[in-house]
Amino acid sequence: MRDAYHEELDALTATLVDLTQLVGTAMARATTALLDADLVLSESVITADDQVDELQQDLDQRALELMARQQPVAGDLRQVITTLRMSADLERMGDLARHIAKVARLRYPESAVPAEIRATIEEMGEVAEKLTKKVGTVLAERDVKGALEVDADDDEMDRLHRKLFRVLLHQQWPHGVETVIDVTLVGRYYERFADHAVSVARRLVFLVTGEFPEDLPTTSV
Amino acid sequence: MRDAYHEELDALTATLVDLTQLVGTAMARATTALLDADLVLSESVITADDQVDELQQDLDQRALELMARQQPVAGDLRQVITTLRMSADLERMGDLARHIAKVARLRYPESAVPAEIRATIEEMGEVAEKLTKKVGTVLAERDVKGALEVDADDDEMDRLHRKLFRVLLHQQWPHGVETVIDVTLVGRYYERFADHAVSVARRLVFLVTGEFPEDLPTTSV
Repeated sequence: MRDAYHEELDALTATLVDLTQLVGTAMARATTALLDADLVLSESVITADDQVDELQQDLDQRALELMARQQPVAGDLRQVITTLRMSADLERMGDLARHIAKVARLRYPESAVPAEIRATIEEMGEVAEKLTKKVGTVLAERDVKGALEVDADDDEMDRLHRKLFRVLLHQQWPHGVETVIDVTLVGRYYERFADHAVSVARRLVFLVTGEFPEDLPTTSV
Repeated sequence: MRDAYHEELDALTATLVDLTQLVGTAMARATTALLDADLVLSESVITADDQVDELQQDLDQRALELMARQQPVAGDLRQVITTLRMSADLERMGDLARHIAKVARLRYPESAVPAEIRATIEEMGEVAEKLTKKVGTVLAERDVKGALEVDADDDEMDRLHRKLFRVLLHQQWPHGVETVIDVTLVGRYYERFADHAVSVARRLVFLVTGEFPEDLPTTSV
């Protein structure tokens, strides 16, 4: 049986998993709002991000209190610190979903995404969702092998991101400068979302093995 | 006289101040490299970012060891945790300077910045430098009043960022799509750089007063 202290640590992990679900849902809805120029849906993503922020602040508070009260050392200290860093990545993923919803809202009733770009954005949304789900499972199961696979999914996101630019740079791009700005920013938001997902997976590997995986980029703290 | 423990805490702060100087210099040099299409300078910014990363990792390591060894509580715990968060902001500021240097390198021997945009980018570089210097002073002197002023400088960055878009969206923009992409990304990098500077200042206010200032946005952990 686990003691109260380790039960609290487990509860922190459960909240991290909840956060992955919230930001995964936010990103899926933001993608739909962007593609369908859905004002109501984009507003709801923007509003729902407050929940992510509150849950993250609550998580951080509990982690800090646990640290102050129990004064963990070695592996336990590492786990609490890593939790704080993961929660920061997840909070930022929520911000990025909100940024995409804001672009959708800004261009309503038009869609910010022209037809030539639609399929690529749709795929980026799918990869973002897949990544976030996998990160949730990886956290819940402390699955190092799964964490390492997240990197391959991020390669897919990078490939799609490069494809976006190729379409924009195609000769005789028929849309205006505004569309180029929107698509450039949106592409960046998806890419950063995936980077933070990789970062969470990478931290899980560190937590379990004591070493960061080679060749996996990370965002800091 | 301060005890060994508080001397170590002071040494952590001194390293944070060193980091502000490194990332401030990196950003100033990245701006010059971008405006002058200076390949050698952009390469040197890209390479120098490794130093920022190493110093940040060293700082984090010392903070974690201090925590494990001394098991600080209350205000002291808050200071160590805040140090970890500030160092993450500063490391990210280094990345953003490197991103700008990479855009400069990518477009060499051309400049990524057309004449119409030059003055605004120059100003953004100046604001970034001013912000970073102020953050260094604020950290060294635990200057809450100065920290609150950083927010006003960030308003200036936001104003310049909006101005960039206005120029891009001006009728008959004579440059191609590639330039719009470059300017959009570069503008985003300056804006994020300033956001992280504000975040460090905001954390300093929290550290000294126990409360986050109202109306100051922050980046998380």
